[in-house]
Amino acid sequence: MPPRILVLNGPNLNLLGTREPEIYGHGTLGELVDGLRAAYIGRAEISDHQTNIEGELVSALHNAESDGIDGVAFNAGAYTHTSIALRDAIAGISVPVVEIHISNVHRREAFRHTSMLAEVCLGQILGFGRVSYSLGVEAIVRHLNQ
Amino acid sequence: MPPRILVLNGPNLNLLGTREPEIYGHGTLGELVDGLRAAYIGRAEISDHQTNIEGELVSALHNAESDGIDGVAFNAGAYTHTSIALRDAIAGISVPVVEIHISNVHRREAFRHTSMLAEVCLGQILGFGRVSYSLGVEAIVRHLNQ
Amino acid sequence: MPPRILVLNGPNLNLLGTREPEIYGHGTLGELVDGLRAAYIGRAEISDHQTNIEGELVSALHNAESDGIDGVAFNAGAYTHTSIALRDAIAGISVPVVEIHISNVHRREAFRHTSMLAEVCLGQILGFGRVSYSLGVEAIVRHLNQ
Amino acid sequence: MPPRILVLNGPNLNLLGTREPEIYGHGTLGELVDGLRAAYIGRAEISDHQTNIEGELVSALHNAESDGIDGVAFNAGAYTHTSIALRDAIAGISVPVVEIHISNVHRREAFRHTSMLAEVCLGQILGFGRVSYSLGVEAIVRHLNQ
Amino acid sequence: MPPRILVLNGPNLNLLGTREPEIYGHGTLGELVDGLRAAYIGRAEISDHQTNIEGELVSALHNAESDGIDGVAFNAGAYTHTSIALRDAIAGISVPVVEIHISNVHRREAFRHTSMLAEVCLGQILGFGRVSYSLGVEAIVRHLNQ
Amino acid sequence: MPPRILVLNGPNLNLLGTREPEIYGHGTLGELVDGLRAAYIGRAEISDHQTNIEGELVSALHNAESDGIDGVAFNAGAYTHTSIALRDAIAGISVPVVEIHISNVHRREAFRHTSMLAEVCLGQILGFGRVSYSLGVEAIVRHLNQ
Amino acid sequence: MPPRILVLNGPNLNLLGTREPEIYGHGTLGELVDGLRAAYIGRAEISDHQTNIEGELVSALHNAESDGIDGVAFNAGAYTHTSIALRDAIAGISVPVVEIHISNVHRREAFRHTSMLAEVCLGQILGFGRVSYSLGVEAIVRHLNQ
Amino acid sequence: MPPRILVLNGPNLNLLGTREPEIYGHGTLGELVDGLRAAYIGRAEISDHQTNIEGELVSALHNAESDGIDGVAFNAGAYTHTSIALRDAIAGISVPVVEIHISNVHRREAFRHTSMLAEVCLGQILGFGRVSYSLGVEAIVRHLNQ
Amino acid sequence: MPPRILVLNGPNLNLLGTREPEIYGHGTLGELVDGLRAAYIGRAEISDHQTNIEGELVSALHNAESDGIDGVAFNAGAYTHTSIALRDAIAGISVPVVEIHISNVHRREAFRHTSMLAEVCLGQILGFGRVSYSLGVEAIVRHLNQ
Amino acid sequence: MPPRILVLNGPNLNLLGTREPEIYGHGTLGELVDGLRAAYIGRAEISDHQTNIEGELVSALHNAESDGIDGVAFNAGAYTHTSIALRDAIAGISVPVVEIHISNVHRREAFRHTSMLAEVCLGQILGFGRVSYSLGVEAIVRHLNQ
Amino acid sequence: MPPRILVLNGPNLNLLGTREPEIYGHGTLGELVDGLRAAYIGRAEISDHQTNIEGELVSALHNAESDGIDGVAFNAGAYTHTSIALRDAIAGISVPVVEIHISNVHRREAFRHTSMLAEVCLGQILGFGRVSYSLGVEAIVRHLNQ
Amino acid sequence: MPPRILVLNGPNLNLLGTREPEIYGHGTLGELVDGLRAAYIGRAEISDHQTNIEGELVSALHNAESDGIDGVAFNAGAYTHTSIALRDAIAGISVPVVEIHISNVHRREAFRHTSMLAEVCLGQILGFGRVSYSLGVEAIVRHLNQ
Repeated sequence: MPPRILVLNGPNLNLLGTREPEIYGHGTLGELVDGLRAAYIGRAEISDHQTNIEGELVSALHNAESDGIDGVAFNAGAYTHTSIALRDAIAGISVPVVEIHISNVHRREAFRHTSMLAEVCLGQILGFGRVSYSLGVEAIVRHLNQ
Repeated sequence: MPPRILVLNGPNLNLLGTREPEIYGHGTLGELVDGLRAAYIGRAEISDHQTNIEGELVSALHNAESDGIDGVAFNAGAYTHTSIALRDAIAGISVPVVEIHISNVHRREAFRHTSMLAEVCLGQILGFGRVSYSLGVEAIVRHLNQ
Repeated sequence: MPPRILVLNGPNLNLLGTREPEIYGHGTLGELVDGLRAAYIGRAEISDHQTNIEGELVSALHNAESDGIDGVAFNAGAYTHTSIALRDAIAGISVPVVEIHISNVHRREAFRHTSMLAEVCLGQILGFGRVSYSLGVEAIVRHLNQ
Repeated sequence: MPPRILVLNGPNLNLLGTREPEIYGHGTLGELVDGLRAAYIGRAEISDHQTNIEGELVSALHNAESDGIDGVAFNAGAYTHTSIALRDAIAGISVPVVEIHISNVHRREAFRHTSMLAEVCLGQILGFGRVSYSLGVEAIVRHLNQ
Repeated sequence: MPPRILVLNGPNLNLLGTREPEIYGHGTLGELVDGLRAAYIGRAEISDHQTNIEGELVSALHNAESDGIDGVAFNAGAYTHTSIALRDAIAGISVPVVEIHISNVHRREAFRHTSMLAEVCLGQILGFGRVSYSLGVEAIVRHLNQ
Repeated sequence: MPPRILVLNGPNLNLLGTREPEIYGHGTLGELVDGLRAAYIGRAEISDHQTNIEGELVSALHNAESDGIDGVAFNAGAYTHTSIALRDAIAGISVPVVEIHISNVHRREAFRHTSMLAEVCLGQILGFGRVSYSLGVEAIVRHLNQ
Repeated sequence: MPPRILVLNGPNLNLLGTREPEIYGHGTLGELVDGLRAAYIGRAEISDHQTNIEGELVSALHNAESDGIDGVAFNAGAYTHTSIALRDAIAGISVPVVEIHISNVHRREAFRHTSMLAEVCLGQILGFGRVSYSLGVEAIVRHLNQ
Repeated sequence: MPPRILVLNGPNLNLLGTREPEIYGHGTLGELVDGLRAAYIGRAEISDHQTNIEGELVSALHNAESDGIDGVAFNAGAYTHTSIALRDAIAGISVPVVEIHISNVHRREAFRHTSMLAEVCLGQILGFGRVSYSLGVEAIVRHLNQ
Repeated sequence: MPPRILVLNGPNLNLLGTREPEIYGHGTLGELVDGLRAAYIGRAEISDHQTNIEGELVSALHNAESDGIDGVAFNAGAYTHTSIALRDAIAGISVPVVEIHISNVHRREAFRHTSMLAEVCLGQILGFGRVSYSLGVEAIVRHLNQ
Repeated sequence: MPPRILVLNGPNLNLLGTREPEIYGHGTLGELVDGLRAAYIGRAEISDHQTNIEGELVSALHNAESDGIDGVAFNAGAYTHTSIALRDAIAGISVPVVEIHISNVHRREAFRHTSMLAEVCLGQILGFGRVSYSLGVEAIVRHLNQ
Repeated sequence: MPPRILVLNGPNLNLLGTREPEIYGHGTLGELVDGLRAAYIGRAEISDHQTNIEGELVSALHNAESDGIDGVAFNAGAYTHTSIALRDAIAGISVPVVEIHISNVHRREAFRHTSMLAEVCLGQILGFGRVSYSLGVEAIVRHLNQ
Repeated sequence: MPPRILVLNGPNLNLLGTREPEIYGHGTLGELVDGLRAAYIGRAEISDHQTNIEGELVSALHNAESDGIDGVAFNAGAYTHTSIALRDAIAGISVPVVEIHISNVHRREAFRHTSMLAEVCLGQILGFGRVSYSLGVEAIVRHLNQ
C-alpha cells in the first residue's frame, strides 16, 4: 500500500495564484495539490490541509499521527520563522516532517533566513518554486522506502 | 459613493474601556467605532472587526480584498511587533492598510518599538490616543482621493 | 468558600503522557488535573482549559476575570517565550496569574530561557515536573489568603 | 482665536521638489506650507522654519515656547535618528510636538527605522507623502481641542 | 525521620527587614527562618546559613553534602546572576538545590533576568515574596518523597 | 540529449565512508556518484569533482560554464558557511547551482546554520543523508525541463 | 596670576532653571556661573560660553587654546554621547578639559551611559547637581597646581 | 561636629605605590589616607578600610550605616564593573556613596567602561589620579552641607 | 574648460598643521589647497571651503550644485561616521562626491571604521596622508573625462 | 629606474569582462593590465598575478618581497573581507600594499563593508571602476617618491 | 637552587576526586600536588594553596611576590571567566603566571570559552586533564631557564 | 618504538625568523623543527610540514592518519580563527591533535581570541614563544603514554 502523505500549508498559502505571483507563481493551491496527486498515483496517497491559524496547524500535526499519516510535507509559511509551538508539535509526534518553501527564503528579508522548525524536521527543501512540493513528497517517499 | 473602510482590531482591544484605562482611555470599542461612523457620514462607509486570533486577522485581510473594501485602518495590537503572517497578508492584498496605535509605543517596552507591519503598510500613525483611529481613517480617505 | 482557580494550558499540552515522556512525564493532562482537584478539595475549586490557539488563550484569560476566577495557574507552553498578546491579556485583567513549567526550561534551548509573561505574572515556578502545577496552585492559595 | 502652529523642518528639506522626487514628491517647501495655510484658515495659524543646522533647530524649539506657539509639526529629517539634543529640547519645552515624515522610513535603510524623538513627542505620523504634514497639523489641532 | 533542609542565603539578605522593605518585606531573616521551622515541624528539619562572601557560599554547599543535608533552598541574591563558582558547586554536589527569590526578578533590571544557577538547580521559584521560601522547602520535601 | 550535471564536492568529502559515519553514512564518495549515474541513465549525464581547496572549487565552477555543464549539485562542505569567493563564483556564472548537504546542518553547531551560498543558488536541499544528492540532481533536471 | 578657566556649555543648557527642574535644578546658567566666579575669586579667572550648535563648540575649544585658556570645565550636554567632532577637538588642543554633568547620567536612558569625550578628557565628574561645576573647576585648579 | 566619612577601598588597592605606578601613582594607601585626614581636619573625620574580598566590602557598607558614618568615598576597584552584590549593598543603606577611580577608566579596556555601582551612587569622579579621592571627600562634604 | 572641483573640509580640519601632526602631517589647510591648485593648473579649477558646522556642510553641498561645481573632494572628518544629514545631501545633489581621509581610519578607533557617506559617494580614498586629496581630485577628473 | 609594482588579483577576477559586467565592466584582466603598463611606461614597471587560491596569494605576497617588488596594488576580491592569512602576509613583508576594489563595496551586501586587510595596508581606494587600479598604482608611485 | 613555584587553585578544586570525575579525573588535589613534587624534585620547589574565595586568591598572588615565589601555575576555576580582580592582581605583580585548566573549556558552555586572565598571563595550557598541571610547571621552569 | 609526531604549520609560518621577530622570535622554521628533533631523540620521531593553503592542511591531516602518525602538534596560524574545514578534518580523523600558538593570542586583536579548532583538539597551548612547540610535543607524548 502506498504511504499516506499530508501536504500541510500555513498562513496566506490559500492566496496562491493571486498573491505576489512573481514570487509564488500561478495556479491555485488546489491545482498544485491535484498535480501532486496525479504525479504520485501508486507511489503515495496524498491528502492536504490549509489554515491561517498557528494553533490549528499544531492540531493538524497531532491529528496526522493519530490518523495514520506516514509523512508530512509542511510549508509553514510565515510561522516557519517564529513558531516554537509548531516546533514542539513536530518534535512531539513520531511522523517525519519535511520543511518546504516555494521561494528561496535566503534571497528575502533577514527574518526569513532562520527556521524554528528545521532542527526537528527530517530535512529542508527550498527555492524551487512549486517543484519544492514534489521534491518534498519525493524525499518522504524515499525516506520511508529505506 | 464614499469609500468602504474596514477598522480592524487585534488582540485585547475587545477589552477597551476596561483594560489599563490610563493607557487606552475610556469607552468601549463599539463606542469608538460608532463615533468614527458618525464623524465620517458621507465621507466613508465604516465597517469593523475584532478578534484575538492572529490567523483570523490574516483571513480578515484576505476577505477585505474580496469584499471590496477600499482601505483598512488596522490596530494589530500585540501582533504588530511579531507577526510575519500579518505582514504577508498585507503584502498579499492590493487594499491599502494604515497601521495605527492608541498609545505612543515608543514610550513603552523596547519590544513595542519595532513593527513587522510598517514596511508593507501605507503609513503609520501612533500616540494620539483614540484620535489615532480618526487620523487613520482620514489618511486613507485622503490617499484614495489623490 | 474556597477560591476558584483556573489551570490553563497552552499548545501541545494536550499531548501530555504521549509527547517526550522523558521531559514531560507520564499520565494525561486530565489525570493531572484530577489529581490536583483531589489534593485541593476544600482548599480550592479547580477548573481547567487547554487550547493550542494563542488567541483563544487570550480570550480564556479575559473570561477568567468575567467568570469570577480568583487565580490562574498558567502553563503557556511555547507561547511563553514569544507572546506579547498573552502578556497584554494578563496585564489587562485583575486576576493574579502564576507562570508554571513542567520542565526546567533553563536546561533546554536558549529561546526557552526568556519569558514574555513573567514580568506581568505574580511569580514563576519551573522545573519540578508535574509538581510545578500543585506548587502553582499552592502559591495562589497562599497569596489569596494573605 | 485659532491655535498657532509651527511647521518646523530640518536638514535637506529646503531641497523639496528637487531632491529625489520619487521619494519626496514635487513642489517646493514654500508651496507645501502655503497649501497648509490655505487648508487651515480659521482652524490654525501656521508659521514655518527650516534650517540645516541641528543646534538652530534646538533653538527654534526653545523659541517656539517663548513665542507662544501652541504646537509644532516637526520633520527633523536626518536628525530624527541620531539627535539627543533635539530630544532634550522637545522634552525641555511644554509645547506639544508631533513627529512627521514624508516617506515611510520603515521601507528605507535600517538606520532610519529608529527615532530618538518619538518617545518625547505627542505622536508620530509617517509614510503619507506630503499628506503627513496636514495629518500632523490635524493631530495637533484635535489634541488642543480636547 | 524528616529530611534535613538547609536554607542558604547570600549577600545582603542579612539586611532583611531593613533594606528596601517595599521589595523585600518586613521581619528579619531570623524571624523568616523561625516561621519556616514552625511550619515544617515533623515534615522537615531546617537549618540555615547566611554570608555575604561568594566563596563561603561555595564552601557551605560543599559542607551541605558532607553534613548529610538532603536538600537546599538557596537564595543566592546578587550572586545568582554572575557566579559560575556557585554553579560549579551545585553541579559538584549530589544534594538537590532549589533556587528561590523573594522578588519577581523579571520586573527589575535586565541583569537580574538571567540566572547562572537555574540550569543546575532542580527548579526555580520566584516572585512570591517570603512565601517563595516555604514553596521552596515544599518543593524539596515533595521531590524527596517521590 | 540529457543535460550534463556536475556533482561538485568540497573539503573532507573525500573521507566519506570513514569520517563520522553516524553523520555522513557508509560507502565512499565514488560509490555514491556511481549510484547517481546508474539512477539517472538517460535522464542526466553526471560528472563529478572533489577538492579540499576553496580556490580550486572556484575554478571548478568557472570551468563548469566553459565546459558546457548544464547544472551543478554542490556540496561545499565547511566552505558553505564562510566562503564569499564561492558565492561570487556562483553569481559569476550562468549555470544554475543547487546547494546540498548530507546532514541536517540545523541540528549541529550554530556556525553551520548560515550559508553564504544559498542566496545565489537556485535552491537548497539538506538533511536527507545521501538522498540529498539525488534530490539535488532531480531538482536540476526538473528545473531544466521547465 | 590665577589660571584662566572656561566653563563651556552645550545644547539646552541655556534652558537651565526652566527645563526639567527636578533633574537640572533651579537658577539660570548665568546665576550658576556668577556663583562659581564668586567662589573662585583669587584662585581662578572664570569665563563662560554656551551654544546649541555642535560646530560652534568645536570652534570654542579651538579658540580656548589660542586665547590662552588654562583649562576647560565642559558640559557638552546631549553631544557628550555622540560627538566625534568634539572628541577630535579636545584631542587636538593642548588645554586640559574636564567632562561634567549635572545629573547622574547612569540613572537615565541607556544612550546617556556612554561618553565619546571621556577618553580624551582629563577626568569625569557627574551626578552632584550643580556642585559638579565647582568640583570640575576645583579639579582643574588642583591639576594645574601639580 | 564634622561629618564622619569612610574611605573604602577594594581589591588590589593595598598594592598602591607598588602596582603599575604609571597608572596608580607613588605613595602607599596609608600615606594617601593620611594626606586626606590632614587636608580635611575640622571639615571631616576620615576613617578607612581596605579588603580584597567582595563580600567583606558588602559588610563594610552595612557597617558604615550602623556605625554612624555620614558618607562613603568608595573605590571598588575591579569589582566596580561586575558586582551586583555591592550595588545592592549601596542601595540597601541610606548613607550616600560616591564612586571614585584613580585612573581614567575610559582610556583602558572596554570592560572598565561600565559601572554596576554608578546608578545607585550619589555621583562618580574619575581620572584625576589620587586627587580623585579628595574630590570625592569634597563632594560628600558639600552634599551633606546642602 | 577644465572642470570646477570643490575641496570641502569638515570639523577640526582648520587645525591642520597644528593638531596631532603625527597623524595629519605638517602645513596648513591653505597650503595644502594651494599645492593642489598648482598641481592641477589647466586640468581642474579648484575652490575650497571649511566649516566645523555639520549643517553648513549640508548647505555647502547644496550650493555646489547650484554654483555649477562639477565634482567634490570631501573630507567630512568626524561627521563621516555619524552624519545621515550629509549622506542625504550627497544623495540629493547630482554632483559626484569623492570621500577622502588623510589617515588610514581602519588603524584607529572602531567608530572610525564605518562611513555613513561611502554608499552615496562615487568612491572612497583613504590613508595616503595628504596625497589622498590629490588622488581624490585625480579620481574626479578621470571620472568626468570618461 | 622606475619602481617595480605588482598588480595582484584574487578570486574570480580572472572572469573580468564576463562576470557581472554591470558591476565589473568590460574588457579582460589582461587588457586592464596592458592598459596600466602603457599608461605608466617610464614611471613604473608593472607585473601582475592572479589566482583563486588564498594560500597562493599569501605566497605571492611573500615572493613580492624576495623578488624586489617595490609596491603592490592588491585587489583581494572576496578574501578581502575574511582572510586573516592575507592580513598576516601583508604585515609580515616590508613592501607597501594598497587595497583596491573596482566596485563601491559599501553599496553591496553588508559582509563586503569590512576589510581584514585595510588596517595593514598603506591605504584603500574603492568604487572608481577600473580606474581604481590606476589610482592604486598612482598612490604607490607617489608614496615611493616621497 | 631550583625555582620556587606556587600551584594555586581556585573554587571547587578542593572537590577534586569527588566532583564530576568524568571531567576532572580521580585522585585528590593533595595527591595531584604530591605527584608534581615528586616529578620535579631538583628541578622545582613546589608549594600549593587552594581557596574558594576570590579575594583570598588576590591576596595569595600578592603574597607570592613578597614570599619570593618565582612562578605561579594557576587554575582559577570558575573565576577565570569573570574576575577582573584576579586579572589586576596578576598584572600588579612581577611573578610570571601560567593559566591552566584540567578540562578543554572550549568543549563546555560558552561562558567558559573566554578568560579574563589569559591576556596578563605568560601563556595558557588547557585540556590535558591533570597533565595540564605538569605542563604548566614545565612551562614556567623552561621560561625561567631562558 | 617512539611515537610518530607530525609538526604541522599553516600560513605565513614559512616566514619564521623574518616576519615580526618581536612576536615570533628569531631562527627559521627548519631550525625550530631541528631543535625539536634533537630534544626528542628516542622519545618521539618528528616529521613536519608547512603550507599556506588551507585545503592542503586539510589533506595533510587526512594523510597523517593514513601514514600512521600518532599525534599532531598543529599551529594553524591565521586559519585557527576561521577554518571550519580544518575543524572538520581534525574531527574526521582519529589521530589526536594539539593546538599550539607561539604568541599569546589573547594579547592581540579580538579576532585572534577565538579558535574554531580548540573544541575538537585534545588541548591548547599558547603564549610560550617557540617553547609552545616543545610543550605541544610533550603533551602528545604524555597523552600517548597514558
